[in-house]
Amino acid sequence: MSQKIAGQVTLEDLSRMCPTISRRTHPEFADGCAFEVEVGAVRFGTGVPVMIAGPCAVESERRMIELALSVKAAGADMLRGGAFKPRTSPHDFQGLGLEGLKILRAASDLTGLPVVTEVMDVRLVELVSQYADMLQIGSRSMQNYPLLVEAGRSGKPVLLKRGMAASLCEWLGAAEYIASEGNLNIVLCERGIKTHTAGEYSRYTLDLNVVPAVQAETFLPVIVDPSHATGMASRVEQASRAAIEFGSDGLLIEVSTWGRGPDAQRPLCDADQAITPETLRRIVEFVRERKSGAQSRNDPMTSLARHARASGR
Amino acid sequence: MSQKIAGQVTLEDLSRMCPTISRRTHPEFADGCAFEVEVGAVRFGTGVPVMIAGPCAVESERRMIELALSVKAAGADMLRGGAFKPRTSPHDFQGLGLEGLKILRAASDLTGLPVVTEVMDVRLVELVSQYADMLQIGSRSMQNYPLLVEAGRSGKPVLLKRGMAASLCEWLGAAEYIASEGNLNIVLCERGIKTHTAGEYSRYTLDLNVVPAVQAETFLPVIVDPSHATGMASRVEQASRAAIEFGSDGLLIEVSTWGRGPDAQRPLCDADQAITPETLRRIVEFVRERKSGAQSRNDPMTSLARHARASGR
Amino acid sequence: MSQKIAGQVTLEDLSRMCPTISRRTHPEFADGCAFEVEVGAVRFGTGVPVMIAGPCAVESERRMIELALSVKAAGADMLRGGAFKPRTSPHDFQGLGLEGLKILRAASDLTGLPVVTEVMDVRLVELVSQYADMLQIGSRSMQNYPLLVEAGRSGKPVLLKRGMAASLCEWLGAAEYIASEGNLNIVLCERGIKTHTAGEYSRYTLDLNVVPAVQAETFLPVIVDPSHATGMASRVEQASRAAIEFGSDGLLIEVSTWGRGPDAQRPLCDADQAITPETLRRIVEFVRERKSGAQSRNDPMTSLARHARASGR
Amino acid sequence: MSQKIAGQVTLEDLSRMCPTISRRTHPEFADGCAFEVEVGAVRFGTGVPVMIAGPCAVESERRMIELALSVKAAGADMLRGGAFKPRTSPHDFQGLGLEGLKILRAASDLTGLPVVTEVMDVRLVELVSQYADMLQIGSRSMQNYPLLVEAGRSGKPVLLKRGMAASLCEWLGAAEYIASEGNLNIVLCERGIKTHTAGEYSRYTLDLNVVPAVQAETFLPVIVDPSHATGMASRVEQASRAAIEFGSDGLLIEVSTWGRGPDAQRPLCDADQAITPETLRRIVEFVRERKSGAQSRNDPMTSLARHARASGR
Repeated sequence: MSQKIAGQVTLEDLSRMCPTISRRTHPEFADGCAFEVEVGAVRFGTGVPVMIAGPCAVESERRMIELALSVKAAGADMLRGGAFKPRTSPHDFQGLGLEGLKILRAASDLTGLPVVTEVMDVRLVELVSQYADMLQIGSRSMQNYPLLVEAGRSGKPVLLKRGMAASLCEWLGAAEYIASEGNLNIVLCERGIKTHTAGEYSRYTLDLNVVPAVQAETFLPVIVDPSHATGMASRVEQASRAAIEFGSDGLLIEVSTWGRGPDAQRPLCDADQAITPETLRRIVEFVRERKSGAQSRNDPMTSLARHARASGR
Repeated sequence: MSQKIAGQVTLEDLSRMCPTISRRTHPEFADGCAFEVEVGAVRFGTGVPVMIAGPCAVESERRMIELALSVKAAGADMLRGGAFKPRTSPHDFQGLGLEGLKILRAASDLTGLPVVTEVMDVRLVELVSQYADMLQIGSRSMQNYPLLVEAGRSGKPVLLKRGMAASLCEWLGAAEYIASEGNLNIVLCERGIKTHTAGEYSRYTLDLNVVPAVQAETFLPVIVDPSHATGMASRVEQASRAAIEFGSDGLLIEVSTWGRGPDAQRPLCDADQAITPETLRRIVEFVRERKSGAQSRNDPMTSLARHARASGR
Repeated sequence: MSQKIAGQVTLEDLSRMCPTISRRTHPEFADGCAFEVEVGAVRFGTGVPVMIAGPCAVESERRMIELALSVKAAGADMLRGGAFKPRTSPHDFQGLGLEGLKILRAASDLTGLPVVTEVMDVRLVELVSQYADMLQIGSRSMQNYPLLVEAGRSGKPVLLKRGMAASLCEWLGAAEYIASEGNLNIVLCERGIKTHTAGEYSRYTLDLNVVPAVQAETFLPVIVDPSHATGMASRVEQASRAAIEFGSDGLLIEVSTWGRGPDAQRPLCDADQAITPETLRRIVEFVRERKSGAQSRNDPMTSLARHARASGR
Repeated sequence: MSQKIAGQVTLEDLSRMCPTISRRTHPEFADGCAFEVEVGAVRFGTGVPVMIAGPCAVESERRMIELALSVKAAGADMLRGGAFKPRTSPHDFQGLGLEGLKILRAASDLTGLPVVTEVMDVRLVELVSQYADMLQIGSRSMQNYPLLVEAGRSGKPVLLKRGMAASLCEWLGAAEYIASEGNLNIVLCERGIKTHTAGEYSRYTLDLNVVPAVQAETFLPVIVDPSHATGMASRVEQASRAAIEFGSDGLLIEVSTWGRGPDAQRPLCDADQAITPETLRRIVEFVRERKSGAQSRNDPMTSLARHARASGR
């Protein structure tokens, strides 16, 4: 009686759709371990969450350097910052472009923290790769397949954000585009989805259920962006702790120094979701305490995560 | 150029829509404190999360008593269990009804733990009130206004679950129906919303952003149901910890002893999301450690929550 | 590798969940015909759409009578009007109650048009049944199972609106509650669902795909409410025509005479979605022309609809 | 009490975000007329819907030519067909690429019908522009801003499909990227959105409310893709008629000849949503009859649409 609907895929199709990254086709990961992705001295997927922090957009060298030093002091492992910004309107600030890349490189070199930045344009993958340690594919680009292929070919580690309406299958399909070019250095990033609550009391709906689901279906690490998933600075700390408790392999957080010092300026984009370096420091401390506590106590936090993966959940 | 759309309400309308429960109209709660709801010796809204646990449905006296003793031993503060079950099909198990209520009362008396159970039928509010310590209004009944009015009139504490597509305004409007009958003993409960991910890798989408949003808009306590919000037993522990980190005033968890002992049976409903008493015990320990640790260290966990409320976030 | 999620049902489960109303279990409806539901002289499911019109809420006898005469003159087959109104806040106008029922009865008697009105309270099913020709179960009540059971027992025809987040399975499960009490006089009504577009440019998202899906899965008639599905008076005519082209067995439309005459008042609820009697007349004419044209030309409009049903699509 | 959420935009922001295409900033379109977009001899926005039809993907010259002749005979105004296909998995058929473009050109030249085809890769805009009469930006690329800019610079007419979770603001923002490069030859295309119904009984949720909303906010024409919005061939005819009644300026339909003739093959993608040329012919006839009937009768169908636009609805 039922009639077929075009284009339906389910998790059962992953063996065929994503043979390179699916746990189903990789018995060597049956013990539940993640593939470890290295970005400089930083490693994702070890069980210790990676903390990435920085401004939404690079706005000037002075401010970027200042902020990079602040987030390093707060305990971050990596820097983030946008040189090319995808904006809803062409009349909004689009980022500093190449100048932004150079500033990011300088900030990275100064602090010793590897840097991730977004590439939106397939023609700029090579350029961005010269300056960044990791390429970010943003939510709006998750199904920009030519971009995924070039990011794969670049050999650079890739941070692949989830599209705001992406199913898990669609997201993993996007990762497969990168992986099938021979590049397994992929870290997935949940950042909130669009739902009927759209904008009533949060920017997006943080979907933490997807974190263990990703870990069950692929051996790639997965982190969470609590800044976009809430859209409100006052919730980022709560969301960060929640993401870690849910098993996230790291966090990607927007930070600003707005309101501090004589010339502190409101950020040009997404000011309302940027936390201060002090809040970042509390989040880092939380992560470290939880993890060391978990290890010393043989806490279910670590064993559970491992079990969840081992049993394919 | 724009034309008005019927029926639009925003949080700005809460002063008018929900004058009894809105923080906006209650300067006495401006310090960010919650109204404390008492259920027997249990108090919601004190800063110490309340743990409610029990089976999806009451299935027999022997099994309910056994489970009640188990969850008490695991550290739960209150019992849950369904005597009247809302089921998608009339041909599914509908609960034991009055017999179930009697069993719940017996289990509560034996353990000393107060019990909450769902009432779906406005004609049964009085009957259920005779046996239960707290009335649960389920998600499907969130906008059953006659039921809300009678629950309000009963004077009993009420656990009001969020409808699966309810906006925050609609949810608080439902609470106002209870409150405007003179009954402020209301605890709200987030339990996951319907989104485009429907069923791909979780039962619902756990919406933790709504927890601080509720706390900003009303002084009523709010708890989280990680069982329905995930639909998978293997994720309930993660979701519970995440909810606590997000500031939840408690947890409502489904537990079973399925698979243990010679005659342990699969629960008649929602078996796939019921955790064991051992997992419950770990969750209780997590909650207690976090809270005592937070207090001894003057941890942002408590001060932040208070701050968030004080500043109306 | 995948783990089971609690509570998942698909259309394949309908034989078990909804044996009374599923086409799958009723070979006598294999020819694609609908079950015809009679409300007085009006019949749903014949292939000729039924036009139901009237105010959101009954506000006074004079205005209801005036409007009833207007919608009859415009060609409507049935009256609608709310005596008991489900409102988001208890402080909004709740309807005239019993007085409203009496006014509706008088308007029906005067015009000869059968009347449908909402019943929200299970205790009032008997009362409302004394005055109304058809009981409406509103969206917020779609899963009020005790109410569905009593509506079934009343023997009255029932108009069952879809919940705003209901899956097709959940909606048909609700209809099964009525039907399994021996009452097959059920007409389903799509009225828009909640989506991420919530309120940006329409009240709900009109989901016309569900109309043929209902017709494929059950032999019960299904109509569309273009008023709530758009929330804007200026779109109701377009939405009505679209629903008819999609195969709807009728329309449920809100009408007012606001702005006409010296004392015409803005309706107390949902004013922005109420059309004028003139617009209703154009919609009625459209429906009649399309249907007579379709029959005289042996148009795919009718044969397609029949075919769609016959082949179970 | 409320705190600001980052990234919120509403229709009120369109004057600033989309000054090039917003009606709000263009009093010369205050009479409600649309900007007419020309593609060869075809014009969008005249009040007469444009019919675009063809296969999902170009699969061979012989089949494409055969199908092009069929859709021309059925009355289509333009051809569609994919040479570069965005697919969820890299292991699915990706299209014939340049060979596909050449086949499309040949089919267009043979039939005299202009052809639209998707371009996904910013590096291929120039190449595709050499073969196609109109560039399609697919749903997955709606926020591929570098691609939008290049499509704008190409000077070619652009068909901009709505992203599956795009708000109206985001969609119009994407159009503004094209327009602000000096290219106003933009036709918008609604193709269904992702909702909680995802895949239960349709591929996407057809959102017809957005059609008049687009017409109120911009003077650009807007068409509907009933193939993706339903995902089922048996519903495309209904959905096409509904879209026309809702005021759509045209239709984009997938057609195949699968199942006809000795060597007719199942299409390599989206076979379940492709209609036959016979069904297409019925849709074309419906459109022509409705429009000529509307004109001869001074039908609200045309006057209403004009009024809706004139009054900014």
